[in-house]
Amino acid sequence: MLASHFASVTSKMLSLSTSDHASVVSLNLFVALLCACIVIGHLLEENRWMNESITALLIGLCTGVVILLLSRGKNSHLLVFSEDLFFIYLLPPIIFNAGFQVKKKQFFRNFVTIMAFGAIGTVVSCTIISLGAIQFFKKLDIGTFDLGDFLAIGAIFAATDSVCTLQVLNQDETPLLYSLVFGEGVVNDATSVVLFNAIQSFDLTHLNHEAAFKFLGNFLYLFLLSTLLGVATGLISAYVIKKLYFGRHSTDREVALMMLMAYLSYMLAELFALSGILTVFFCGIVMSHYTWHNVTESSRITTKHAFATLSFLAETFIFLYVGMDALDIEKWRFVSDSPGTSVAVSSILMGLVMLGRAAFVFPLSFLSNLSKKNQSEKIDIKQQIVIWWAGLMRGAVSMALAYNKFTRSGHTELRGNAIMITSTITVVFGMLTKPLIRYLMPHQKATTSMLSDDNTPKSINIPLLDGEQLDSFELPGTHQDLPRPNSLRGFLMRPTRTVHHYWRQFDDAFMRPVFGGRGFVPFVPGSPTERSTHDLSKP
Amino acid sequence: MLASHFASVTSKMLSLSTSDHASVVSLNLFVALLCACIVIGHLLEENRWMNESITALLIGLCTGVVILLLSRGKNSHLLVFSEDLFFIYLLPPIIFNAGFQVKKKQFFRNFVTIMAFGAIGTVVSCTIISLGAIQFFKKLDIGTFDLGDFLAIGAIFAATDSVCTLQVLNQDETPLLYSLVFGEGVVNDATSVVLFNAIQSFDLTHLNHEAAFKFLGNFLYLFLLSTLLGVATGLISAYVIKKLYFGRHSTDREVALMMLMAYLSYMLAELFALSGILTVFFCGIVMSHYTWHNVTESSRITTKHAFATLSFLAETFIFLYVGMDALDIEKWRFVSDSPGTSVAVSSILMGLVMLGRAAFVFPLSFLSNLSKKNQSEKIDIKQQIVIWWAGLMRGAVSMALAYNKFTRSGHTELRGNAIMITSTITVVFGMLTKPLIRYLMPHQKATTSMLSDDNTPKSINIPLLDGEQLDSFELPGTHQDLPRPNSLRGFLMRPTRTVHHYWRQFDDAFMRPVFGGRGFVPFVPGSPTERSTHDLSKP
Repeated sequence: MLASHFASVTSKMLSLSTSDHASVVSLNLFVALLCACIVIGHLLEENRWMNESITALLIGLCTGVVILLLSRGKNSHLLVFSEDLFFIYLLPPIIFNAGFQVKKKQFFRNFVTIMAFGAIGTVVSCTIISLGAIQFFKKLDIGTFDLGDFLAIGAIFAATDSVCTLQVLNQDETPLLYSLVFGEGVVNDATSVVLFNAIQSFDLTHLNHEAAFKFLGNFLYLFLLSTLLGVATGLISAYVIKKLYFGRHSTDREVALMMLMAYLSYMLAELFALSGILTVFFCGIVMSHYTWHNVTESSRITTKHAFATLSFLAETFIFLYVGMDALDIEKWRFVSDSPGTSVAVSSILMGLVMLGRAAFVFPLSFLSNLSKKNQSEKIDIKQQIVIWWAGLMRGAVSMALAYNKFTRSGHTELRGNAIMITSTITVVFGMLTKPLIRYLMPHQKATTSMLSDDNTPKSINIPLLDGEQLDSFELPGTHQDLPRPNSLRGFLMRPTRTVHHYWRQFDDAFMRPVFGGRGFVPFVPGSPTERSTHDLSKP
Repeated sequence: MLASHFASVTSKMLSLSTSDHASVVSLNLFVALLCACIVIGHLLEENRWMNESITALLIGLCTGVVILLLSRGKNSHLLVFSEDLFFIYLLPPIIFNAGFQVKKKQFFRNFVTIMAFGAIGTVVSCTIISLGAIQFFKKLDIGTFDLGDFLAIGAIFAATDSVCTLQVLNQDETPLLYSLVFGEGVVNDATSVVLFNAIQSFDLTHLNHEAAFKFLGNFLYLFLLSTLLGVATGLISAYVIKKLYFGRHSTDREVALMMLMAYLSYMLAELFALSGILTVFFCGIVMSHYTWHNVTESSRITTKHAFATLSFLAETFIFLYVGMDALDIEKWRFVSDSPGTSVAVSSILMGLVMLGRAAFVFPLSFLSNLSKKNQSEKIDIKQQIVIWWAGLMRGAVSMALAYNKFTRSGHTELRGNAIMITSTITVVFGMLTKPLIRYLMPHQKATTSMLSDDNTPKSINIPLLDGEQLDSFELPGTHQDLPRPNSLRGFLMRPTRTVHHYWRQFDDAFMRPVFGGRGFVPFVPGSPTERSTHDLSKP
């Protein structure tokens, strides 16, 4: 009696250190696989077809096969994918880091084009894919779908993935393309949220002008509020760190506060049903412009690399998981039952996605080119093809969307197809993108590394964020990235330049005295990152 | 019909971004509170009584009151505490960082004393507390306890908390004390695991010599295996990073790999039912001695501060939670039912803990002093009092233990008491420790900051890990930390010195060529961290 009670008490104690045995095994394997992805991804870096996300995907696939064999065909993944894991822990560091490292000048110079791509383009693409799916799916016999399902298909496949773009294009080598495709992906997220809201609240059978205006109003409201929240959080972090001047005491407190504030901005946006992606992206931009300059030198290096590392780990994790899950038995049951239908569905959707993107990329690029006077700012046909192509690549966000939408509504076969298609597209397009960019832009090295910030060796010793990019505007000596630096007339004629000029005045007069910023450290002219961009921005 | 299906599909979509609303609210509040802890902790740093863990505890307490009032007395905490959260995510970064930043020379010089404190001391203390509890609790009427429960009480209250020590003592100012108390806490963990195993597998009614030998054998087996696992993982990380030379490409990959390998070591130890704390601690030591020197300059700064930041955040999180949970209604129900008994139980346990520690600290210190010939290496009476006192402070680990042990075995009232006592001890002892150290050691500044690595301003620009400490041995010019650097005889007479000497030869001849280490970067003599220690190591 005593002995048995004993055993129960002590087994409870032991369970403290052993915890849930299965989850410990899973975690061990997952961490070991992540290590393998980093090492193998590094070894395969010189390879023509591979990039790190594809490496992770393939390693996940191989592991899936092994697990499938060991568990005798029962399951192929270690962890159960939860949307919380993805949207609460993995996505925020990826998007924040993108905002933190983005070249602000390029981004804001192409702001109008990016907005057009992200807002109008997504709606156009979603409409075409939905209509196409309604037309074609009726002819195939694949269960009952209603309008809501078709719109969901349209929304999923119209969603460009900003995470994926980071791996396909290199910010330093193709800054214009990068800012366009990546910016599109960020704005796209806000559009998706509005689209879903619209589907829910409007009577879709009576589409008229009023509904369109309401939609536009909702979009602007969401976009502005999300942006404002991100900017406000960033400014508060800058103000607090400047006032308290943590540097006197501890780098770790500064880093912790920056991390927490960035995460808080995302979670607040989720709380108020705004676009968390937009918010955390703008928070990253503001933090790199103000907060980052208010902290100590060690904090600057630490934040730069710690954020990049977290983002890198989150991405690798997602691709590893997706690779493992590609072998999910349930998903393939439908495919094996009717392989013909499955191939047909996949082909139709792939074609529609390509058509949907083509339907807005080329017309909008044409319109954008009409407004630009300078030849180097125009988007030429090769660049248009790259934008179209890069946007086709599905990434982690699309996969997560596909997972959850159809799993919950019970359309397992549709989910299976969606996953299959996205996986296929990622692998195929990911592999073809390197050669394509090399073919279309022979002067530029096609780098598909996830991590582009350390390609310039000097940045190891003189790490400068791209915040300096924006600041170089006032310094004529380093001012090589304007196509015609001598022409003051052309300079003033372009409206974005003028906006930038007024912004600079406002920034210097009101913002910097309160929130800190570049003034806190001496500006180093001609930093390595800056030069490398200038040379490459001229095609 | 169509509309309702619509609504359900779209609500599923929306749930993607809004997720579980309650958990989003909790996360927001928790992140905001963590920010508040950092800022307020910084503002109160000059205060005589406060330190950062107490600030977090008090903020948690205040928030608990507010939540209690808002939820009308239903509950006081935001998140449900899970042992997984603590043992899988919060504890590893804290212990790893401790190993990564520990002064290796001090630690290994006092290795024998530390082992005696950690192994023998814990057994002595556990026995005294268990026997005392059996004696006194029989006279009070507080439910039925059997021998297992009493041993559990003994084990919990004999467990010194290595995490807590980091906040009470400063490594730079009191290196000997720090290494003794902190080292005791690390070894203690291994002893606890062995103690629980012993309770489970041995027949406690027949304690004899054989059982004692078995116990000793188990302890040595567990200690050696855990240490070996940590050392092996650390060496593999050093070898991989040296061979692949990631620095050529990316700081982020190096940082990611170091993080993952460190975490892997902890998880592997948990998988094999070893002491994860010991493993990850030694992994940290090996990584700071080899791996850290093989990476780029940016990686070094990033890892140093990123690990410290993660550890800092984990600690603050734990204390914040404990503060919130202190108001748990269920826990106080028993206390309000019979306040007299509750006070008696608490007083008895507190007295037993003090007695248990005194019973081994003073005798073992006496024995340790007998073996030391040099006056400066002996532990004087003031230092003994500090060791005794600092070990009394309960911290996050003890709290987590107390939570789980008694919640599971159904002794809620005992859990309530345990939490109450640990909370009280933490606050009272934490507040008194600053003045006590100031009183006992008037020459040394009593710093109770959680983050001690940035107290030397120069370390911002020339960050040198304590790995350099060990290396200074060969350089006579910087060789100020030996009490009598001229006496070669005294040098050779002390056995630890000789062990150190052979280790150095082995390290240079076999380890460094394979695993890298200091040779990868030029050694900077007289680094700021080194000097500050030398001045203070002479009392």
